[in-house]
Amino acid sequence: MRLVTYRPEVTAAARLGAIVDGAVVDLARLGDAMGHPLPSSMLEFIDLGPQAVRFTSALLDAHRGKWPVGVAVPVHSVKLLAPIPRPRKNIFGIGLNYVEHVAESSRTLDTSKDLPKEPVIFSKPPTTVIGPGDAIEHNKEITQQLDWEVELAVIMGTRAKGVSEDDALKYVFGYSVMIDMSARDCRRAGQWIYSKGQDTYAPFGPCIVTADEIPDPHTLNLSLTVNGVTKQCSNTRYMLFKVPTLIADISKGIALEPGDIIATGTPEGVGAGRSPQEWLWPGDVVHAQVEGIGELRHPVVAV
Amino acid sequence: MRLVTYRPEVTAAARLGAIVDGAVVDLARLGDAMGHPLPSSMLEFIDLGPQAVRFTSALLDAHRGKWPVGVAVPVHSVKLLAPIPRPRKNIFGIGLNYVEHVAESSRTLDTSKDLPKEPVIFSKPPTTVIGPGDAIEHNKEITQQLDWEVELAVIMGTRAKGVSEDDALKYVFGYSVMIDMSARDCRRAGQWIYSKGQDTYAPFGPCIVTADEIPDPHTLNLSLTVNGVTKQCSNTRYMLFKVPTLIADISKGIALEPGDIIATGTPEGVGAGRSPQEWLWPGDVVHAQVEGIGELRHPVVAV
Repeated sequence: MRLVTYRPEVTAAARLGAIVDGAVVDLARLGDAMGHPLPSSMLEFIDLGPQAVRFTSALLDAHRGKWPVGVAVPVHSVKLLAPIPRPRKNIFGIGLNYVEHVAESSRTLDTSKDLPKEPVIFSKPPTTVIGPGDAIEHNKEITQQLDWEVELAVIMGTRAKGVSEDDALKYVFGYSVMIDMSARDCRRAGQWIYSKGQDTYAPFGPCIVTADEIPDPHTLNLSLTVNGVTKQCSNTRYMLFKVPTLIADISKGIALEPGDIIATGTPEGVGAGRSPQEWLWPGDVVHAQVEGIGELRHPVVAV
Repeated sequence: MRLVTYRPEVTAAARLGAIVDGAVVDLARLGDAMGHPLPSSMLEFIDLGPQAVRFTSALLDAHRGKWPVGVAVPVHSVKLLAPIPRPRKNIFGIGLNYVEHVAESSRTLDTSKDLPKEPVIFSKPPTTVIGPGDAIEHNKEITQQLDWEVELAVIMGTRAKGVSEDDALKYVFGYSVMIDMSARDCRRAGQWIYSKGQDTYAPFGPCIVTADEIPDPHTLNLSLTVNGVTKQCSNTRYMLFKVPTLIADISKGIALEPGDIIATGTPEGVGAGRSPQEWLWPGDVVHAQVEGIGELRHPVVAV
């Protein structure tokens, strides 16, 4: 399933939907119509566990093209929000997780040229999250070095503590796209949260593709353009620490919970790593995509 | 007011209470009895804003010593939980925020001997939080360098974005005590979240003292003992970046929201800074207190 959070109209409350044949199918309304209650928010749906995914997928298959009145609307007629507009804790970010990006970072930032021996973890508060098309804020009083990072986002499905790499993917609900915006001049004593944690610094979406449709998350092309010019173009196969390793590693010490998000790191081609360095400014447009999931397009605006 | 989250009995649901004359007064039940509905959780109460604080304080004063039946129980008969058992986002931690602690850290850790020019911010996930008396977990497969840090915690009352230092304290709901547990050998490429973010690494409580009772948060003695031996003993006046500066600084880029927690940094005397270095092991007991707020006592246990 391709699950979205959306508003049917600009002022309407957020709803949970599935994209099928170019339409957004309202899951709670479909459930009501069929006598099988389903929730109207992504986090409530994730909380129901893997059985709900299988059940809902079967329900969509059974009624495909025969939607009850009021259940489906064209996707272009709705406003898509971030799939989880308000995560329950900070997003886990993984730094220096593509080999070439480790090299470019060490040339121009304060990081080591050696490959990390363990995942480098940081966090982005829930207030960083914006939905497809929303503006990325550029506050010139805080940063003159706003940078881009396209990433595959992993959304956890069930609580994971101390899980093995072999079992780790069973705990995944699905995958999405995230741009890990970074103000390079806002690192402090090496800590990245202020650099990566400002409001609007986590464009997220456009959907969550459930894990059953992406059996191997390490075969996906991912790319990013600025004003139409390609800046990043790689494949998730080049991740240094793969998704099962990340989940096993984090969950050794930190319980991962339903709806938790792991942004798995970015490949080479960030602005800080270019010669000369390039930064984002108001008026720029950032476009990111991950194969099989979707794309995000965001204007940068002055605040 | 001294507000607590507690269970009347071990298996009961968590309730919101105020400590008055050695009793826990159940605010929702008091409100019901007086015809003024009040919530039963701390976050709901904080969401009501400053008026609710003033109203509830007056209500407690008016009925002090004349509690309706079933509204008050002796504080020693209840189980206190963390005042906010589940924060809505990661706790903001401030590193290197007492001058002498900057010096001791630079001698033994990988931090600079220069005073930070801006607050050094990191985060601790909501899953780090434990309540008074709960066990701090020692996982020897992850750390051999478990350390203590007593801190004054600031709890935000209203949304703050871009607030000035002059106005900052108006956005504070109250103050509490937090121990910022740190596994010194779990820092990764300088990032502290794995070092400070593991489950049980944020003992928190025993209460939140509302801001009206602490007009100046920079006059408070704070101290910590391990097995009865004093390790840290200082005063919040020695903070490098004071609370108004921290709020103004963070809120420039990151919206602070009701219930958000800022752990304001620890004074000198941590285990990493001692010669020889000292670490916590299963069987140890950590006791922390901040003047005018209260104390926390936690055993360290093997997992």
